[in-house]
Amino acid sequence: MSRRGTAVYVGVMLVMISENVHRDHGCRLQALAPDAAWLRLQDDGTLRLGDDVVEATGLGPDVAFISNDVFYGPVRKCFELLEAWPSLEWVQSAAAGTEAPLYRTLIGRNCRVTRAHVTAVPIAEYVLRAVLTHFQQPHRLVEQQAAHVWKHQPFREVSRSRWLVVGLGSIGGEVATRARAFGAHVVGVRRSVARGDEPVDELCTPGEMLAQAPLADVVVLAAAGGDETRNMIGREFLEQMKPGSAFVNVARGYMVDEVALLEALDRGVPEIAILDVFATEPLPVDSRFWDHPRVVVSPHSSGGGDGRIQRAVDVFAENLQRWQRGGQLLHEITESDLPAQPETWVSEKR
Amino acid sequence: MSRRGTAVYVGVMLVMISENVHRDHGCRLQALAPDAAWLRLQDDGTLRLGDDVVEATGLGPDVAFISNDVFYGPVRKCFELLEAWPSLEWVQSAAAGTEAPLYRTLIGRNCRVTRAHVTAVPIAEYVLRAVLTHFQQPHRLVEQQAAHVWKHQPFREVSRSRWLVVGLGSIGGEVATRARAFGAHVVGVRRSVARGDEPVDELCTPGEMLAQAPLADVVVLAAAGGDETRNMIGREFLEQMKPGSAFVNVARGYMVDEVALLEALDRGVPEIAILDVFATEPLPVDSRFWDHPRVVVSPHSSGGGDGRIQRAVDVFAENLQRWQRGGQLLHEITESDLPAQPETWVSEKR
Repeated sequence: MSRRGTAVYVGVMLVMISENVHRDHGCRLQALAPDAAWLRLQDDGTLRLGDDVVEATGLGPDVAFISNDVFYGPVRKCFELLEAWPSLEWVQSAAAGTEAPLYRTLIGRNCRVTRAHVTAVPIAEYVLRAVLTHFQQPHRLVEQQAAHVWKHQPFREVSRSRWLVVGLGSIGGEVATRARAFGAHVVGVRRSVARGDEPVDELCTPGEMLAQAPLADVVVLAAAGGDETRNMIGREFLEQMKPGSAFVNVARGYMVDEVALLEALDRGVPEIAILDVFATEPLPVDSRFWDHPRVVVSPHSSGGGDGRIQRAVDVFAENLQRWQRGGQLLHEITESDLPAQPETWVSEKR
Repeated sequence: MSRRGTAVYVGVMLVMISENVHRDHGCRLQALAPDAAWLRLQDDGTLRLGDDVVEATGLGPDVAFISNDVFYGPVRKCFELLEAWPSLEWVQSAAAGTEAPLYRTLIGRNCRVTRAHVTAVPIAEYVLRAVLTHFQQPHRLVEQQAAHVWKHQPFREVSRSRWLVVGLGSIGGEVATRARAFGAHVVGVRRSVARGDEPVDELCTPGEMLAQAPLADVVVLAAAGGDETRNMIGREFLEQMKPGSAFVNVARGYMVDEVALLEALDRGVPEIAILDVFATEPLPVDSRFWDHPRVVVSPHSSGGGDGRIQRAVDVFAENLQRWQRGGQLLHEITESDLPAQPETWVSEKR
């Protein structure tokens, strides 16, 4: 399948993966692709082939895997390399987002691009943990323990609470499944036609969302990116929210009117905003979100569960076999999956 | 149904409930029992009937409801009153535990006793929150937010973890259901014969528990009380536990060999003990558990979710109707439900 290579690797499929993935999963991948040679991207951005440090120029990899460790490591260098190698026929990303301009470039020169949906599970775990934390206020128990104080602390239950989950893709679905196991009543907002198997108690359309705002104890924004979602949570929605409610954003910062959100929080409703994403990332050091008493900030890290690496390698391994057989690839994207306007794709990953 | 009463209330069913329950649920209860008179126990332990403060002597209530607010309020006074009133024909408790000697006294004089299972839901929410907190370590995010630091924090997932849930009564079942919704593999330990509808992936007997210890990432003790459970988690079980595992006790403190647990924690396995119950409660101020870096202490409050009050009133209201019709009561206990040895029943409730 290889069209070119160095003298040593002519006729061999050259695959770029990270040193970390090669160390932890190399044996498995080699068994799946015994004819491949493995070009290993180091944390410092250099490349190794066998025992040698090699220059990018002159190499013509066929396949590349942008694994999770790359996104949190030498991501800029990796993207430069992929941009510079017209030999690439297929690039697997461990991420779900396709906002990086690189993907448009790759698809434009007929390189196939596949993504993965490996962060829905940790994002759902993050959301449930954050809401349970707000409802239970365990810091009171931590303080009591430090002071050796034995005093009953009642708390708010998720059971019988009402959740509005905006977006029923992989993330919204995983959130809804867990909330319902806690006995919450879940209303899902879905743009497309209902399939009938959504893990929710009720479905509504984006047009009906505003009417749901006064009823929800928890609102979770888990919609896919795109221009039509910009400022979808605005002043009007926030003003309709219920006293004591929680607002959670694990989608994209630009989907919320942040000025209106801060004003709503100043008024006391919602009671809390749990924000993993922001219009500008990293969140500027002088942002009001950092110090607002009703805001919980996390650094776009809700997807950072330790299982995501194994899940992404699983997708790459499956696609590697399909690629060799010339079959359909899982989670392949086309030009229509690319956003109209590129967003802040690198800073989000820090 | 009333056998006696004051001059004013002859022929009327006299029901003791707390002032709080009367305030919040009085209209509903009056509609269910229009012929009843309501003797209201105040937070300070005094009794009111209509507008009057009344003396306990000379009153002969037929029915009493020990609601959740009583357990966290005038519980000693309430128990003294019930002990002093031979007129009582039925007492409804909002608790599941039957260790208080009062229940033996009541049953001994043919007063019917019903309990409630209203804390399984909040206890399960507490367990999931506590395990998610340990896995995600959100205090790192809190510290970063205070310092305006944007830094990715990876975390451990519940997904694909393995849980051993000891006891599959109402609490164990609710814990197992939620853990499985997170994608955990749940092994349930059940003494009695399997019914086939347990919400677990595997079942084992208490005799097979030790063999499961090395496999479990999370061990949750949720067994019903009783002499046969004393020290059921001993040195041998603890020594078999997995590095990095979490041990959670929401059952009774005496089920664990606390000396052996502290020694195991000193050795570093389990990684954490999340303890809501202790052999002596309140936990003595000089207990090593307070300050151990691998111990999370809560004051027997995992059942303290705000929904428990409504659930207990629901059970009382249902039984009040059944009582008036002369029907079977829900959750009635008999002498065989009483423990052989009374445990520390009042101190636990503080």
